[in-house]
Amino acid sequence: MIIDCHGHYTTVPTSFRDFRTKQVEFANDPVNAPKPSDCVVTDDEIREGIENGQLKLQQERGSDLTLFSPIAGLMSHHLGNERTSLEWASISNDLVHRVTEMYPDNFVPVCMLPQSPGVAPANSVPELRRCVEELGFVGVNVNPDPTGGYWTGKPFTDREWYPLFEAMCDLDVPGMVHVAASCNPNFHGTGAHYLNADTSVFMQILQSDLFKDFPTLRLIIPHGGGAVPYHWGRYRGMSLEIAKRPLEGLLDNIFFDTCVYHHPGVELLTKVIPADNVLFGSEMIGAVRGRDPNTGEYFDDTKRYVDACDALSDADRFKIYEGNARRVYPRLDAKLRARGL
Amino acid sequence: MIIDCHGHYTTVPTSFRDFRTKQVEFANDPVNAPKPSDCVVTDDEIREGIENGQLKLQQERGSDLTLFSPIAGLMSHHLGNERTSLEWASISNDLVHRVTEMYPDNFVPVCMLPQSPGVAPANSVPELRRCVEELGFVGVNVNPDPTGGYWTGKPFTDREWYPLFEAMCDLDVPGMVHVAASCNPNFHGTGAHYLNADTSVFMQILQSDLFKDFPTLRLIIPHGGGAVPYHWGRYRGMSLEIAKRPLEGLLDNIFFDTCVYHHPGVELLTKVIPADNVLFGSEMIGAVRGRDPNTGEYFDDTKRYVDACDALSDADRFKIYEGNARRVYPRLDAKLRARGL
Repeated sequence: MIIDCHGHYTTVPTSFRDFRTKQVEFANDPVNAPKPSDCVVTDDEIREGIENGQLKLQQERGSDLTLFSPIAGLMSHHLGNERTSLEWASISNDLVHRVTEMYPDNFVPVCMLPQSPGVAPANSVPELRRCVEELGFVGVNVNPDPTGGYWTGKPFTDREWYPLFEAMCDLDVPGMVHVAASCNPNFHGTGAHYLNADTSVFMQILQSDLFKDFPTLRLIIPHGGGAVPYHWGRYRGMSLEIAKRPLEGLLDNIFFDTCVYHHPGVELLTKVIPADNVLFGSEMIGAVRGRDPNTGEYFDDTKRYVDACDALSDADRFKIYEGNARRVYPRLDAKLRARGL
Repeated sequence: MIIDCHGHYTTVPTSFRDFRTKQVEFANDPVNAPKPSDCVVTDDEIREGIENGQLKLQQERGSDLTLFSPIAGLMSHHLGNERTSLEWASISNDLVHRVTEMYPDNFVPVCMLPQSPGVAPANSVPELRRCVEELGFVGVNVNPDPTGGYWTGKPFTDREWYPLFEAMCDLDVPGMVHVAASCNPNFHGTGAHYLNADTSVFMQILQSDLFKDFPTLRLIIPHGGGAVPYHWGRYRGMSLEIAKRPLEGLLDNIFFDTCVYHHPGVELLTKVIPADNVLFGSEMIGAVRGRDPNTGEYFDDTKRYVDACDALSDADRFKIYEGNARRVYPRLDAKLRARGL
């Protein structure tokens, strides 16, 4: 089985995006704000988006199951306020849940959180618990910068995050460290902010004792780990210098996906990072949607790049495509086992 | 000849750093502030730092000449004000100039600018002209984020930067896009802010028409280009989607150094980026100073990694080690030619 750990529901109907625009516009005018019940998406609209989008590409490219979460760019925690963030997270998670109920063999849900700048991460715990305990979500996307690219909050390793991490450990769900859209003109969203966040949070963790405090916390750094595997030597040296410990110790808790859109990048990733710590991911349909004019293939068809890594053994491939995902997301594994898989 | 395009004068005497601390402390109290003439560094102190530091390592590791600039972390444009930035740039550039006068065969000077948050980049032009025209500097480090990690200024491609780029083109000096220290606790300086800046500015340029406006502007993206070569496929796809042109067009004006501290990273860099666009660099003595316990070698001994790239032809190696630096820094080439090199 080939599990894609990183997919977003980017094929929502336009009306869904329009609702969000209005919700934000009236964030401080609740009387005139649209009601959650105004945000209607029909089963037909879901089918149209999914069957012409993610499901079609899944089948064409040969993966079987996608860990599916709300559109990262549209999480936009920097917009509105705590109330609208909660409303939006709840609506978005419910919609993703509907997709996974309609296509249970192909999509398994991962939730977003109702984060908001300056609001304690602890306040996101009830929505996390609702998604996991009531709706069967198996993981969570955590935004390390709810300010949308101004980074005026506290590092991801600050104690203000601990109640959230406690809940994640208690629920046994891993977190993908995934920012939302950037409102800082210095940082293009998918071309800079995403990769910067991946790199920055990894470095914050390197400097911290996060996994001493949470030995069972598991974090996925998406987009191939930002700049990290490419600069693995830099981080190995810094870990020895700053933290007085080998970098490799972080690998009990940190995992990287394969959302790197060319073969040499995926080859480096799989060469530098142990096979136990790499999870297949495509981010599709997401950051880059076109085809490589040199090959005619889609840039984000990352399975091709993994397949072409000749140095990987069959055992390594099994880990990257299935084994690691089932280990890192135990609730996914339980779901699959319940289906005899 | 082996030219290292990226070296900082990190072995300054403590008194030099102490002067900066006091200068910043009294930034708004000019009456009690230390005077530039209080910042005394003796020739012996220079000799001690250089001969036990950069010169020794240059000789041990087999490079010949380093493009030498003030300590990046100590540029700290976010501290003090426009006046102290100008004073500090002038003192720092003069000191680097002294080193290069004492060791002309080994070090060639690259300047820092007197940038300050909210101050027009045009105001840095006089110091740039002084360094290049009066003191023989061959390049300049330009800080794309004088706020030190809060990124509240305008993108590097905004027209406010144009007077500086005009001067750089007029003087025929390339710029290394190099941030200073980070004062944002989310971003470790050398472990996140540096790499994020490299990545972010590359993406800003991808989105812009900078090189249409400045066809002769040449920029070096240090630290192996941040996350860029590792995500080259992502950027190729984005360039086609966003800018409707192949990414490779940027390579007339953009260059990457080899400050990547392990062999697989340098191998990826030299595989993905044409040999015409890679300049040997070590950043030494800089971000990572220790030895790899697996090999006993220094992490920042980047020449080893380049040497070990078997796919490089002799012609490619010549470009990376010498040819490209002489082409990208014409004033360096003129200096070397004047010496019969």
